[in-house]
Amino acid sequence: MKQKVNTFTEEINNAIAVIIPQSPLSTNLEESMSYSLEAGGKRIRPVLLLLTLDMLTSNHEQGLSPALALEMIHTYSLIHDDLPPMDNDDYRRGKLTNHKVYGEWKAILAGDALLTKAFDVVSHDETLSDSVKLKLIQRLSQASGHLGMVGGQTLDMQSENQEIQIDLATLEQIHRTKTGALITFAVMAASDIAQVENHVADALYEYSDHIGLMFQIKDDLLDIYGDEEKLGKSVGSDLENHKSTYVSLLGLDGAEEKLQHHTDAAYDCLAQIEQQYDTSNLKYIIELFVNRDH
Amino acid sequence: MKQKVNTFTEEINNAIAVIIPQSPLSTNLEESMSYSLEAGGKRIRPVLLLLTLDMLTSNHEQGLSPALALEMIHTYSLIHDDLPPMDNDDYRRGKLTNHKVYGEWKAILAGDALLTKAFDVVSHDETLSDSVKLKLIQRLSQASGHLGMVGGQTLDMQSENQEIQIDLATLEQIHRTKTGALITFAVMAASDIAQVENHVADALYEYSDHIGLMFQIKDDLLDIYGDEEKLGKSVGSDLENHKSTYVSLLGLDGAEEKLQHHTDAAYDCLAQIEQQYDTSNLKYIIELFVNRDH
Repeated sequence: MKQKVNTFTEEINNAIAVIIPQSPLSTNLEESMSYSLEAGGKRIRPVLLLLTLDMLTSNHEQGLSPALALEMIHTYSLIHDDLPPMDNDDYRRGKLTNHKVYGEWKAILAGDALLTKAFDVVSHDETLSDSVKLKLIQRLSQASGHLGMVGGQTLDMQSENQEIQIDLATLEQIHRTKTGALITFAVMAASDIAQVENHVADALYEYSDHIGLMFQIKDDLLDIYGDEEKLGKSVGSDLENHKSTYVSLLGLDGAEEKLQHHTDAAYDCLAQIEQQYDTSNLKYIIELFVNRDH
Repeated sequence: MKQKVNTFTEEINNAIAVIIPQSPLSTNLEESMSYSLEAGGKRIRPVLLLLTLDMLTSNHEQGLSPALALEMIHTYSLIHDDLPPMDNDDYRRGKLTNHKVYGEWKAILAGDALLTKAFDVVSHDETLSDSVKLKLIQRLSQASGHLGMVGGQTLDMQSENQEIQIDLATLEQIHRTKTGALITFAVMAASDIAQVENHVADALYEYSDHIGLMFQIKDDLLDIYGDEEKLGKSVGSDLENHKSTYVSLLGLDGAEEKLQHHTDAAYDCLAQIEQQYDTSNLKYIIELFVNRDH
């Protein structure tokens, strides 16, 4: 399985390396777009899309355009989130953030251009039918817009600025939208392409919801007991910043229990479809999310 | 014709008033999106789209979704351009800019959400065929992305920061991308929907290019001899900011001649199709662009 993930990751990285051609305009905007797009990262979202499609159809290649679009949208969101009026971060994954290299105004525009290009990439795909492409565009815009990722980032900022009080329901709402919506897109885009039966789509949707929350709970736990070197950032920063997390709301044991709950539930979702499909790709993702140390 | 323009403008404003429903998330992100979307403006781009479609098919209604998407993208670009790291404007059309009302981080996110929603709106249209919707999404992403509007804004910022020297060719490149690309989208979206013959599409494309440049030359001229009250901004600011304009590069007479050249050329384009179509809608736009005083 590790080999398959490596292969898919390489395919994504190869496609990313050529997706932003230099424009005839003499600006370095494309350079700044590529800087962040190629800044590494684990490519979890696009790999998850390809793994799901591989499970459903044994042919992951039709998923490449939406996988790239997904990574472009994830990347633009990081560029904008790092800006001084938002998280004001100088480094990401050990590299200078986009605005530290190219300046604030160009970072805003690079983010805008990556978001725009994501829709271009899906709409120009040559292997998918028109109706599937439109379904993917609908799903992508809803997952990443004011009802999804951008709405979640707004709620998160409001909570960090203590404009709103956070309880567990609000915390889950933040994570379902801010990070969960794109994880769900990854799984459901594959389900759209494979045009699966409704009960399969339902099980996959539930699965994606549970692993999205798992991803975040693990993030909060790693901020307590993670290895700074492996994480590439200092631990304990949530506590220091008085940030509401699963740990601050439920305690360490409570957060561990919650993680276990969503892990079990994710396996249960896969059990519903394992007579039809070999679910080992998606079981691997569960293990990856539970056991990750960075 | 004025009556028709007023009717189309009203249809656009009515649709805009209901296009951003409050989300279940308790944020005021939607309020900030609507604030800028409803902040007035002349709705030139969406009206141009509907006028072109009305000329081609006598039925403008199929143009409403792309017209709204176009206005959303125009609006997001104004929100981001007004931000402190870009133009740092406190007022637009006599109203406080988005970031002055809602803060910088929310203005960035409101822009992001409007851009995202534009693709959602086109993809969910119920009157257009799948292939036309995809064509419109392709055209919209190209017109507004790094090869279009965002690329043009980058070039414009680089010239204002004196990172590049401006000659007439570069100035035209800035305007063709920064403002011209969306004006061309308006005309060509109608042409896509009506599925016109190639020679008609070619004539319309040329027409849109000429009126896009006319729009900008007139802008530069109004900064010299416009009426501050009608413009809602002070004149002479280009000179004060040492901005490269048609007037600074060609002189006042040279800029007037250039305006006349593109006006004549735009009429010539319409002459090529007036045996097939009643071009009075598009002639009206030419007159509007030449005679406007704000």
